[in-house]
Amino acid sequence: MTVQLPPGFKAGAVAAGIKPSKKIDLALLTCPPGSIAGAVFTLNRFPAACVIRGRSLRPMTNLGAIIVNAGNANAATGKLGLERDAAMAAAVAQALGLQANQVFTSSTGVIGQQLPLEKVQAAMPALVSSLNSDAEGFSQAILTTDLKPKLVAKEVVIQGKAYKVVGAAKGSGMIEPNMGTMLGYLMTDAPLAPSLIQALTEEITNRSFNCVSVDSDTSTNDSFFLISSNPQEGPLAPELKAALQEAAIELAKMIAADGEGAQHLVEVQITQAQDQDQAHRVMKAILNSPLVKTAIHGRDPNWGRLMMAVGKSIGDMGDNLPINIWLQQVPVFQKGEPQPFDKPSLSKKLGEFEVLIQVELGLGQAKATGWGCDLSKDYISINAEYTT
Amino acid sequence: MTVQLPPGFKAGAVAAGIKPSKKIDLALLTCPPGSIAGAVFTLNRFPAACVIRGRSLRPMTNLGAIIVNAGNANAATGKLGLERDAAMAAAVAQALGLQANQVFTSSTGVIGQQLPLEKVQAAMPALVSSLNSDAEGFSQAILTTDLKPKLVAKEVVIQGKAYKVVGAAKGSGMIEPNMGTMLGYLMTDAPLAPSLIQALTEEITNRSFNCVSVDSDTSTNDSFFLISSNPQEGPLAPELKAALQEAAIELAKMIAADGEGAQHLVEVQITQAQDQDQAHRVMKAILNSPLVKTAIHGRDPNWGRLMMAVGKSIGDMGDNLPINIWLQQVPVFQKGEPQPFDKPSLSKKLGEFEVLIQVELGLGQAKATGWGCDLSKDYISINAEYTT
Repeated sequence: MTVQLPPGFKAGAVAAGIKPSKKIDLALLTCPPGSIAGAVFTLNRFPAACVIRGRSLRPMTNLGAIIVNAGNANAATGKLGLERDAAMAAAVAQALGLQANQVFTSSTGVIGQQLPLEKVQAAMPALVSSLNSDAEGFSQAILTTDLKPKLVAKEVVIQGKAYKVVGAAKGSGMIEPNMGTMLGYLMTDAPLAPSLIQALTEEITNRSFNCVSVDSDTSTNDSFFLISSNPQEGPLAPELKAALQEAAIELAKMIAADGEGAQHLVEVQITQAQDQDQAHRVMKAILNSPLVKTAIHGRDPNWGRLMMAVGKSIGDMGDNLPINIWLQQVPVFQKGEPQPFDKPSLSKKLGEFEVLIQVELGLGQAKATGWGCDLSKDYISINAEYTT
Repeated sequence: MTVQLPPGFKAGAVAAGIKPSKKIDLALLTCPPGSIAGAVFTLNRFPAACVIRGRSLRPMTNLGAIIVNAGNANAATGKLGLERDAAMAAAVAQALGLQANQVFTSSTGVIGQQLPLEKVQAAMPALVSSLNSDAEGFSQAILTTDLKPKLVAKEVVIQGKAYKVVGAAKGSGMIEPNMGTMLGYLMTDAPLAPSLIQALTEEITNRSFNCVSVDSDTSTNDSFFLISSNPQEGPLAPELKAALQEAAIELAKMIAADGEGAQHLVEVQITQAQDQDQAHRVMKAILNSPLVKTAIHGRDPNWGRLMMAVGKSIGDMGDNLPINIWLQQVPVFQKGEPQPFDKPSLSKKLGEFEVLIQVELGLGQAKATGWGCDLSKDYISINAEYTT
C-alpha cells in the first residue's frame, strides 16, 4: 500500500551514515504554510536535546518542518548536544527558506554519544530533493530496532467534506512512554483550532501512547506531534476527535505488537476500579510483570501471576478482594475463588497472536485499557547486543 | 561445610511429593521452648494463606516450630486454602505436642492451586524423625527454582560470651520483596528483648531483603522470620544488631546472585539523594530496568541506559541535573557531561561476576544500596516453562 500524506505535506528520507548499518536514518517532514502543531514529550528527567528545544517551541503556530534522525538519541550529551540540535534545525531552515524556530527536531538511537552533525549537514541537499507526497520513506527512516514501519491513514468527513488523518510512529524498546511514544506524528488537513490543539494532543496521548508498555523503561526522547495544516478557531468536530484518537490507538498498538522480541500483542482491560489512577496502575503492573510476560510467551495459563501483579499494585484496599479475572475470555478466578478450566484448551488459545486479559476489581466505575507484549529470548539478544 | 543450628534448634526435611520432581519439598524447624520471633510479610494484596495466618500470630512469644513447603504457594486459594493452612499447622502441633498457635507456616511455589494436605499429613512422622541439628536439609527443602541453598552462619561475642546467628533463605524469581524476601529465617541463641524483636526484624529487613530485586515482581508469599531462643528484656547489644544485619544482607545478596538466569550480581549505590525515598526509588529503577539488566548481561558499557533509569525515577527535580555516574568505578558521566573512557577495557571489567554501579545525585545526604542481577535468556526459559 502507498500511504499518501494529507495535501501539501511532503516527506523524504536518506541514509546519512548516522547508523553504522547504512540504512536510511534521516527523515524530513515539511508542512503547508501556516500549519499548527501540539506536542507532548517524555517526562524523563534527562530529556534529549530535541525534547528540551521542542518544549520551548510548543504550541507551534507556524510549523515548517520536522527533521528526524535515527541512530543517535542526542541525549545525555551536555551543552554540545544542545548546540548540535540547534544546528540541525538551522540547517533545515536554511535549506527550506524557513526560520529555525519553525523547525522541530527529533532524535532516536543510542544515548550519550554526540550527534555527527557534519553528516546531517552533508545529507541536507539529498534529503530535500527526496521530498515527495508518500509517507513510507518517512516511516522507514525513523526506525531503530523496529521490525516494521508503523503507518496509519484515515479519512474523516466533516460537514460533507473529506479530510485525511495520517500518522507514523516508531518504538520497539525502552517503551513505557510517559507523555508521548518514542516518536509519533499525526497529520491532518482537517480544521483544528490553534487554541485547542495542545490540550487535544495531550488527551489523545493519554488514551493511546501512554497506555503502552514494552519493557517499563521510559525513553529520554519520547515525542508525539499532532499537526494540522488547517488552523481554524471553533469547536472540535467529534468525528475528527474520534478519528485522531483511533489513529493514535492504532499506532500505539502497532508499537506494542512490534515490541522488541514480541510474539504476542497483549491487551489488558481493567474495569470497576475505584479511580482512574488505580485502573491505570493495575493495568501497567500486569503489562510490565516479567512473570506475566514470560507466562504468555510460554502459553502458560498461569493466572496466579496475574493475581500477584494485581495484588502488588492495587494499593491499600484490604486483602483478598473478590475480583474476577478472565484470560482469553475464560473465567479463571471469580469472586475470590479459583475456577476450574480446561488447561490444554486455554493453553491453545494463548497461542493466538492477540492475548486478552480482563480484570474486574468490583470497587467502582473507572476503567483502563493498555497494550504490551510478551517477553522472549529475542528481547535479551536485541538488548544485550545493541552496542554503545 | 556443615552449618550447625544454634543450640536447641533442630531442622529436618523430606520429599512429601508436593513437587512433581520428587525433590525434598517439606521442611520443619523446631525451636527451644520459650523462643521469640519477629516476622515481616509481603505487602502484596493477595497474600498467601500462610501470610494471613502468620500476621495474626506475630509477635510470637512462644514459638515452637515453623513448617515450610515448596511446590505450592497456597495463595489465591480462597477459603479452602486458609483451612488447609491451619490444618498443616495443627498436624505439626499434634506431632510435636504444641499448641497450633505456636506454629508458623510458610508456603512457596505455584500460585492458585490447592495444597495437597494429605501428602503433608502423611509425611509428618518421617519429617519429625528427620529432625537434627544441621541446617543444610532445611535450606535445601525450601528451594523452588533456586540453584543454590542460601545459608549464613556467624558468631557474635557479647560481654565475653559467644552466641550463634544462623540464617537460611530461598528466593530466585518473583523477587522484589516488599517486607521480607520469598522466605527467610534468621535464628540466634543471643539474648533479645521480646519488646524489641518485631521492630528490629523490620529494620533489618529494610536494609537487606527490601533492597533486592530480581524481576520487580512482589510475591504473594514473602516472609522473613527473626527468632531468638534467648528472650531477655534490656537494650540491644550493638554487636548482635550488626551481626543480624550483616547476616540478612548476606542472604539478600545470595538471593540476588541466584536470581533466575543470573550471571552477574549487580550492586547499585545511590549517594547524595535528597531523601531516603528518592535514593531507594532511583536504586530500584536501575536494578529493575530490563535495558540496564540486558546491557550488563551483554557486558555493554551502555551508561546512557543508567541516565534513562535515573531520569525516569528521580522525580520532579528539574531537568539534566549534573549527576555523576561510575560503572565498575570508571567515571562515565560527570557534572552533566559524558566522559571519555576505554570501551574494551570497561567491557572486560563488566565480565566480572560482581558489577558495581554508583550514582551521586548531588542533592543531599541520603543514600541507598541495593542488589539485583542481569537479565538473561535463561530467565525466559525458566519462567516460560515453569508450569501451572
